[in-house]
Amino acid sequence: MATAGKVIRCRAAVAWAPGKPLSVEEVEVAPPKAGEVRIKIVATGICHSDEHILKGSLLNVEFPVILGHEGAGIVESTGEGVTSVKPGDKVIPLCVPQCGKCSFCLNPESNLCQKFHLCESQNLLPDKTSRFSCKGKQIHHFLWVSTFAEYTVVPEYAVAKIDAAAPLDKVCLFGCGFSTGYGAAINTAKVKPGSTCAVFGLGGVGLSVIIGCKVAGASRIIAVDINKDKFAKAKQLGATDCINPQDFKKPIQEVLTEMTGQGVDYSFEVIGKPETMVAALASCNMNTGVCVVLGVLDSGAEISIDPMLLLTGRTWKGSMLGGWKSRECLPKLVSSYLEKKFNPDLLITHTLPFDKVNEGFELLRTGKSIRTVLLF
Amino acid sequence: MATAGKVIRCRAAVAWAPGKPLSVEEVEVAPPKAGEVRIKIVATGICHSDEHILKGSLLNVEFPVILGHEGAGIVESTGEGVTSVKPGDKVIPLCVPQCGKCSFCLNPESNLCQKFHLCESQNLLPDKTSRFSCKGKQIHHFLWVSTFAEYTVVPEYAVAKIDAAAPLDKVCLFGCGFSTGYGAAINTAKVKPGSTCAVFGLGGVGLSVIIGCKVAGASRIIAVDINKDKFAKAKQLGATDCINPQDFKKPIQEVLTEMTGQGVDYSFEVIGKPETMVAALASCNMNTGVCVVLGVLDSGAEISIDPMLLLTGRTWKGSMLGGWKSRECLPKLVSSYLEKKFNPDLLITHTLPFDKVNEGFELLRTGKSIRTVLLF
Repeated sequence: MATAGKVIRCRAAVAWAPGKPLSVEEVEVAPPKAGEVRIKIVATGICHSDEHILKGSLLNVEFPVILGHEGAGIVESTGEGVTSVKPGDKVIPLCVPQCGKCSFCLNPESNLCQKFHLCESQNLLPDKTSRFSCKGKQIHHFLWVSTFAEYTVVPEYAVAKIDAAAPLDKVCLFGCGFSTGYGAAINTAKVKPGSTCAVFGLGGVGLSVIIGCKVAGASRIIAVDINKDKFAKAKQLGATDCINPQDFKKPIQEVLTEMTGQGVDYSFEVIGKPETMVAALASCNMNTGVCVVLGVLDSGAEISIDPMLLLTGRTWKGSMLGGWKSRECLPKLVSSYLEKKFNPDLLITHTLPFDKVNEGFELLRTGKSIRTVLLF
Repeated sequence: MATAGKVIRCRAAVAWAPGKPLSVEEVEVAPPKAGEVRIKIVATGICHSDEHILKGSLLNVEFPVILGHEGAGIVESTGEGVTSVKPGDKVIPLCVPQCGKCSFCLNPESNLCQKFHLCESQNLLPDKTSRFSCKGKQIHHFLWVSTFAEYTVVPEYAVAKIDAAAPLDKVCLFGCGFSTGYGAAINTAKVKPGSTCAVFGLGGVGLSVIIGCKVAGASRIIAVDINKDKFAKAKQLGATDCINPQDFKKPIQEVLTEMTGQGVDYSFEVIGKPETMVAALASCNMNTGVCVVLGVLDSGAEISIDPMLLLTGRTWKGSMLGGWKSRECLPKLVSSYLEKKFNPDLLITHTLPFDKVNEGFELLRTGKSIRTVLLF
């Protein structure tokens, strides 16, 4: 490639400081070093986690930073020693890497990797330097992926090569939202055919949970949200009932318990509020109910529960990226999508040119969008 | 039997009011009605839950009451329609019944029953009357079993018939403590061979967890208690390491994480304190760790956690009576004991005549006993 080995000047949305709008700037993207891959991002979704981080309320992210973690693109060039991808390959950059060597990766039941941000900071690439700069300043990476940049550099073990037929403006959602929600139903809860499910929160991840519950054969999928505008989409994707907690005087966990006799088999919290986390736990049945928490609280916030909820037999758990081992499983998920096993295209309500990134965030904040995809 | 159909006058320990010592009294025990079984209790353990309830801090128990829920005895007489046991059978009365007909019982993965106290009060027998009276006053049943009485009456579906060869002064522990702890490792956590475990709290249940972890093939079992006097027994039962949190400046979850690299595979909280519940959760590894809560907090008490602990992949769960379907599984557990698969006899540190029941409670409160068994 003509650009290989050179610094690329391109657009990126820089978050200079928490709480400020993103600033679309020209940035310099250095070439990939050994073991790294430079990717031309074609499309990127905007996820609620980006918004949480932009507010400065999540993870240990350093500013200035290029956010974005739900992208898809094409390999532009590769550093020394990279063997698994080559220029021109369609790829998804992975916010949960899979080094394949650490004890987490070697555990067949785990999808985390000790290269993941919560084990070791991903604010810089593994050699503790950044490939991004802007106006002479170093810009931090975000979870290594930083998909709000036209070009980004990631370690080889944070790249999944996908089918050449995959439409990048759609499968970008597999980088976070769709995989997280769908996998929470399939891998984390292991929803069984004929079971009952409740999904709290009908954003992109919550709706992906519904897709997963439906594919798993749940007989009843109850969608819960205070925004009734989301109900039509939830039903389209497989919800059998849609309820608004504000329509009831009694707590929503009591409503769900009455609707199902003893509580649902599986509940999912995809909002990130203490009260809905507790309600979701209490909504699943006392003896074999499984509650999966996917929502993210502000840093430092805690939830308070009566452990008797667990003692009777409930299971409370969570997962990152839907429990998928990322490099290994995301390409298979994309293939299943191409075989039309499920249709997350329906999650994409808005498509905007990249420069309108702040408009995309505003659609998310006001609840008007499910997923906005930005195109370079 | 000569006594069948007649009121039996016998000894029982009556709890007249919360916070008062038990009073050994002569009580009247009415004959079993249809579907009920009157049992001559031979031996009963004293469990921490009895102490919690005596303090008035647990469940919705009505006073005056005859406590005790870890007993074994011999069927004295049966009411109309009882077919599964007959006078002379050795039995364990079941604090978690198994009616075999409700949706919980029909669920192969559940061991609760909708006749259980948390679904429907067990302070009186199913016909809403008591078989106990003392000094002209009705005395309440406790979880239907009330083993602190020489004779007790329970529904047929709250009785497990056990092997005639079983020593009742030993297998009484299968009525609660041993089954709860052993099953928490085997059924609830599903401890795998070669795994690492941490057990917080070395009372009878905690030590039974250790027995379960060892039988399941755990390679490292770390026993945690602030009472070093319990360590010898823990090691005898299978603990590979014993640690006292007071010996460390850093939080015990950090100590355990360092000892094991990433945290244990399975942790068990068998104390019932908010801080140890949180520590146990944080002690298991972030991605596939399973924490089982068995300890019981005072009524209304809550615990506060950062849900990020779950979001990365941990599982938090609990179980009643070790997840065993009681009527079906306890007889098999007793048979395994007779085949010497495990030896919970080592949990019994004291044996006292029934009249010394308050002395037994004192041994428990001061941490001097593991299990005290009272003999009639």
